[in-house]
Amino acid sequence: MTKHDDDLLGAFIPGPRAVRAPLAAGRLSGRSFAAKDVFDLAGHVTSYGHPDWAASHPAAVATAPVVTALLQAGAALAGKTKTQELAFGLTGENVWHGTPRNPAAPERFPGGSSGGSAAAVAGGAVDFALGTDTGGSVRIPASYCGIFGIRPSHGALSLAGVCALAPSLDTAGWFTRTASLLAGVGEVLLPGGPGDLGGPLLRVEDAWVNAQPEVAEALRPALEKLEQLRGRAIGLRLVPEGIDSVFDHMRMVQAEEAWATLGSWVSAHQPKFGPGVGERLAAARVVDPSDAARGRAFRRAFQARVRPLLAGGAVLVYPTSPCTAPLLSATQPEQDLVRGATLGVTAIAGLCGLPEVTLPAARVRGAPVGLSLVAAAGRDRALLGFACDAAAVLGLSV
Amino acid sequence: MTKHDDDLLGAFIPGPRAVRAPLAAGRLSGRSFAAKDVFDLAGHVTSYGHPDWAASHPAAVATAPVVTALLQAGAALAGKTKTQELAFGLTGENVWHGTPRNPAAPERFPGGSSGGSAAAVAGGAVDFALGTDTGGSVRIPASYCGIFGIRPSHGALSLAGVCALAPSLDTAGWFTRTASLLAGVGEVLLPGGPGDLGGPLLRVEDAWVNAQPEVAEALRPALEKLEQLRGRAIGLRLVPEGIDSVFDHMRMVQAEEAWATLGSWVSAHQPKFGPGVGERLAAARVVDPSDAARGRAFRRAFQARVRPLLAGGAVLVYPTSPCTAPLLSATQPEQDLVRGATLGVTAIAGLCGLPEVTLPAARVRGAPVGLSLVAAAGRDRALLGFACDAAAVLGLSV
Repeated sequence: MTKHDDDLLGAFIPGPRAVRAPLAAGRLSGRSFAAKDVFDLAGHVTSYGHPDWAASHPAAVATAPVVTALLQAGAALAGKTKTQELAFGLTGENVWHGTPRNPAAPERFPGGSSGGSAAAVAGGAVDFALGTDTGGSVRIPASYCGIFGIRPSHGALSLAGVCALAPSLDTAGWFTRTASLLAGVGEVLLPGGPGDLGGPLLRVEDAWVNAQPEVAEALRPALEKLEQLRGRAIGLRLVPEGIDSVFDHMRMVQAEEAWATLGSWVSAHQPKFGPGVGERLAAARVVDPSDAARGRAFRRAFQARVRPLLAGGAVLVYPTSPCTAPLLSATQPEQDLVRGATLGVTAIAGLCGLPEVTLPAARVRGAPVGLSLVAAAGRDRALLGFACDAAAVLGLSV
Repeated sequence: MTKHDDDLLGAFIPGPRAVRAPLAAGRLSGRSFAAKDVFDLAGHVTSYGHPDWAASHPAAVATAPVVTALLQAGAALAGKTKTQELAFGLTGENVWHGTPRNPAAPERFPGGSSGGSAAAVAGGAVDFALGTDTGGSVRIPASYCGIFGIRPSHGALSLAGVCALAPSLDTAGWFTRTASLLAGVGEVLLPGGPGDLGGPLLRVEDAWVNAQPEVAEALRPALEKLEQLRGRAIGLRLVPEGIDSVFDHMRMVQAEEAWATLGSWVSAHQPKFGPGVGERLAAARVVDPSDAARGRAFRRAFQARVRPLLAGGAVLVYPTSPCTAPLLSATQPEQDLVRGATLGVTAIAGLCGLPEVTLPAARVRGAPVGLSLVAAAGRDRALLGFACDAAAVLGLSV
C-alpha cells in the first residue's frame, strides 16, 4: 500500500493509504480522487474523524455506492482524507489526526468539515475529492482553499455507506481545481433530469451585506463580469428577519437531527472532542422541542419564499462565505463568530435543499474567497454548465 | 403504560405500548397515531423488526424529529407498529413478532414492510400512522389494506432517527382512512414550496398492462371518474424495455445500497431471517459492481425520460399494485412472482424520487386495490390537494 509519508499537506488520515484501482474505463479514466473519511471503503474502518468512532465500529464490509460509481467511471482512489470530528464544524481542525494545511493560505484554517479533501485538491495531491456538506462542509473549505466545490441538491447523491449527521441537510459533494472536471464528475454522479437556467441573476443582498466589506468588494468585479454574461442582476432581500435569524433556526433543525442521529453513540461512548464539537453536541442534547418546532416552521416558510423565485431558472449569486478562512491563531470566540455569520449564509441553500457551486473568484490580501451560484433543486447539471461559462468569463481554470 | 392485550389486529410490536402525549396543541390535536418500529422514540429500543437488532442496539436517547413534529402538532402516539425485518419485504410477514392481520382481507397478507402501521389504521386503532417506503413499503400495504397512503418526494421528510435501508430510495410516509387527514398530516410534515398540478392525466400503460386483468378492470371506472375531473387521460409507455427491466435495475440499485447500509451489521451478527429477507440480503452481498453501475445508469436515463413529462404539472395514474394482497397460504415462489411484478411498478416513482399517493379505489372479489397518482418531485402538497378532489369524485372517505 502507498505510504502516508508523502502527505506534506496533512490531508490524508494517518496510516497506510486506502487506495483502489479503477474498476473499469470511463469518462474519469486517468483521474485520481480522494474521499473524506466518512465514505465507507470495504475492508477499512471509517473513522468519522474520531479515534473512538473508529474503535467502536468494525471495518466496512461494503464500499459506498458513490465511491464505486467513481471507480466504475475510471477514476482511481488515492486515499481517505481527514474530516473534522463527526463532520460537525467549519474550520477543518482535527486534534486527533492533525489539521490539514491550507495550501492557498498556510497560516489559515483549511475550512471544514471536509478540510482534508479540500487540501488534497488545492495542493494538487489528487484531481478531485469527495466531501459531505450539511451546513457548509464542502462550500466553506472550497472557498477557503481557493478551489471549485459543489453541494448538490439535497438527495441527489446516494448517502448509502456514508456517515450521517443531520439527514434532512446532509449531502455529498466534491472539489476540483477546474470547472470542467467539476461538471465531469457531475455527469457521473448526478441524477438525470431536466432543468434549464434561462432566468435572471438574483443578487442576494442579505449575504452581500453580511459579508465583510473587503470580501464583498473583492467579489464585486466577478459579479459584474457575470452580469456581462447574463444581464444585470436583480437585487433582493431573502430574509428580512436577518441572517442571524436564519442561523438560529438552522442551528435548531441541525441540532435536533444531529442528536437524533449521533446521540446514542455519544451517550454510550462519552468521547472527548476537540474545540467546539463537544459543545455543539452538548447543546444538541438539550434542544427544546418547541425551539426545534419553530426551526422547522421557519424552514417551511423560508422554502415557500425562496423556491418559487428559482422555478423559472433564476440563479442566486452571493459570497460563499462572509469572510476569509480564520487564522490558525484565532480564538474560539472568534471562530464562533465566524461560524455563526457563515452558517446564516450557507443555510440559504441548505434549508431549501438547493444546489450551490462555489467558484474561486477572488482573494483578499492573499486569502481566497468564493462566489456562489445557487439554482432550483434538481438543476445541478445546468448549474454546472453555467459554472463552466462563469469560470471562462472570470478567467478561472476551465 | 397501555397494555398490548387490546391489539386484536396484531399491529403493534409486542410488549408495553410506546405511548406519548402531545407536546402542544395544534392542527392534529385529538388525533392518535402509530409509528413503524423504525422510528426512534427516546427511551425505547428500536427493533427494526428483528430481535437481534433490538438486542444489539441501545435504547434510543432521542426521538426521530418527524415523530416530535407530530407530537408538537397535537397528535398523540399510541404505539409502535410491526415492520418486516429490516423493512426488506412487501408482504408484512414477521416471524418474530407475528404478522399483522389485514383488517380488509383477513385471509391475505397486510402488505409490508410497514404492515403494522397499515393494519393499525385500517382496523381503526389509530387515526394515522407513519411508515417508511423504499421499494413500496407504504404504497403496497395501503393498497392491500384499502386505505390512503403517501410516499412523499425523496428527501421531503427528515430520516434522522429512522432506520435506513437504501438511502437514495428511502422515504418516510403515512397512512390514513380519509383523504383530508392524509393532506392534514402533510401540512405538518412536508416542506414548503410551489407546485401546481394544472397538467393532464397521464395513463401509464406499462403499469395498466402489467396489472392482473381483473385489477385493471376494477380500477378503470375510477380512472374514468378522474377523467371527468381533469379531462381525458393521455396514454403513454414509460418503459419500452418492459416493467421486468425496471425491476431488474431497481433491484441492483437497492441491493448495492442495502448491503452498504446493513452489511456490517449482518456480517457481525449473522442473524436468522424469515422467508425471503435473508435470501435478498445474501444476494445483496454479492452484487456485481458492473450490474450496480448498469442499474445506476438506467436510473439516470429513466429519470431523464420521466421527470420532464411532469414538469408542467401532469399527473401519472396507474394501479398501485398489479394484484391484490397474496393469500397467507401463498408459497414463497408465488410471493416472489408478485414481488417482482410489483417492484417494477413501484420503482417508477421510487427511482425518480416522485411523490405517489394511493387511493383505496376498488376491490377485486372483496380484496382492496389502490389507484396511484404521481406528480413531479416537490409537488407533494398539490398532489395531496388533488387526492382530496379525487377522493370526492370517487366517493371515498374525504
